[in-house]
Amino acid sequence: MQRDPMLKLFYAPNSCAMASHIALEEAGAAYEAVKVDLVAGDQRKPDYLAINPKGRVPALVTDRGILTENPAILAFVAQTHPGAGLAPLDDAYEFGRIQSFNSYLCSTVHVAHAHRMRAYRWADDPAAMAEMRRKVPQNVGECFDLIENELFKGPWVMGERYSISDPYLFTLSGWLKGDDVELARFPKIHDHYRRMQQRPAVASVLPLHQR
Amino acid sequence: MQRDPMLKLFYAPNSCAMASHIALEEAGAAYEAVKVDLVAGDQRKPDYLAINPKGRVPALVTDRGILTENPAILAFVAQTHPGAGLAPLDDAYEFGRIQSFNSYLCSTVHVAHAHRMRAYRWADDPAAMAEMRRKVPQNVGECFDLIENELFKGPWVMGERYSISDPYLFTLSGWLKGDDVELARFPKIHDHYRRMQQRPAVASVLPLHQR
Repeated sequence: MQRDPMLKLFYAPNSCAMASHIALEEAGAAYEAVKVDLVAGDQRKPDYLAINPKGRVPALVTDRGILTENPAILAFVAQTHPGAGLAPLDDAYEFGRIQSFNSYLCSTVHVAHAHRMRAYRWADDPAAMAEMRRKVPQNVGECFDLIENELFKGPWVMGERYSISDPYLFTLSGWLKGDDVELARFPKIHDHYRRMQQRPAVASVLPLHQR
Repeated sequence: MQRDPMLKLFYAPNSCAMASHIALEEAGAAYEAVKVDLVAGDQRKPDYLAINPKGRVPALVTDRGILTENPAILAFVAQTHPGAGLAPLDDAYEFGRIQSFNSYLCSTVHVAHAHRMRAYRWADDPAAMAEMRRKVPQNVGECFDLIENELFKGPWVMGERYSISDPYLFTLSGWLKGDDVELARFPKIHDHYRRMQQRPAVASVLPLHQR
């Protein structure tokens, strides 16, 4: 197994960076996980902005440079650890299905969720922020309805093969309770969540993501 | 040049689907462009929901199945038309840089913009929607500041090589005026926009995107 000690993942507990964190573990990558304390505002300090000027997690430091955004890091981990079989690397269509799913998670599902805790990104007025928070359970629930009914193939997201889409879905499924949406409302995703928890890579990463 | 008559792109004029549209043209792909009339609500009709249950554009019909989301379609076009050189396909890090940029566009920049015309996605109260619209110029401007100062390498997004990130940035740059943000505020992106307009692939697609 290739061990590359140059990889360093900047993450925050229970943030979307958990997806990349699990993927690194599944890949058997040699990496260091560095916690960014969002509550203390570490992501806005010069040291971290030099790593990721967006002030967000995840960021993956490689020997070539720094990559940000889950879909990019997940694909990079799969491509640089082909033995782990985390993505169909020689099939542009199947790879595209993964990219499509992961893009939906980052551009729509994560954004629907973010209107609860990060409504200040899109409004300054407290009443408007409260209105956005009010709609979060409906929006997040509709996203997961679509995943449950249309996108999720089973037993894994893409079908028979576990892939980099699985830790990403697992990470966002873990936010449902906080958004007042019942995970049990989505039987296939609920079952997926329980099977994910039992994977050694996931179990080894989860303690670092308790808050 | 490979001609694959099975490709069919569903797009709406001046929507983000223009990025995928330009990429297909740059790749020399044989494809059919099918207009979806968002004003008439075509995206919510059963015929289109059978193609893309999200009710959004773009959607690319291939002989293997349907792909949605720009980052996925752009990577698919690059991978299936390697001769066009639209992405560094054999370099996971350089490919990751493209994925990172495109993910930022779909998850943050497009979302910042969408709060002007699609605020109803995240709130029902008209006052809250007005407050979101009010903040759009600030948010979109900050996104383009980050691109101008941190992400854009020049002369193309990724540096010396034109890639699938260029039509995507070009498409979102074209929305600035409607968001009350001056393109000229970002000299590198402004220059990029003008050079993009002169590319034959872009010039051939633009007439279909006038509204």
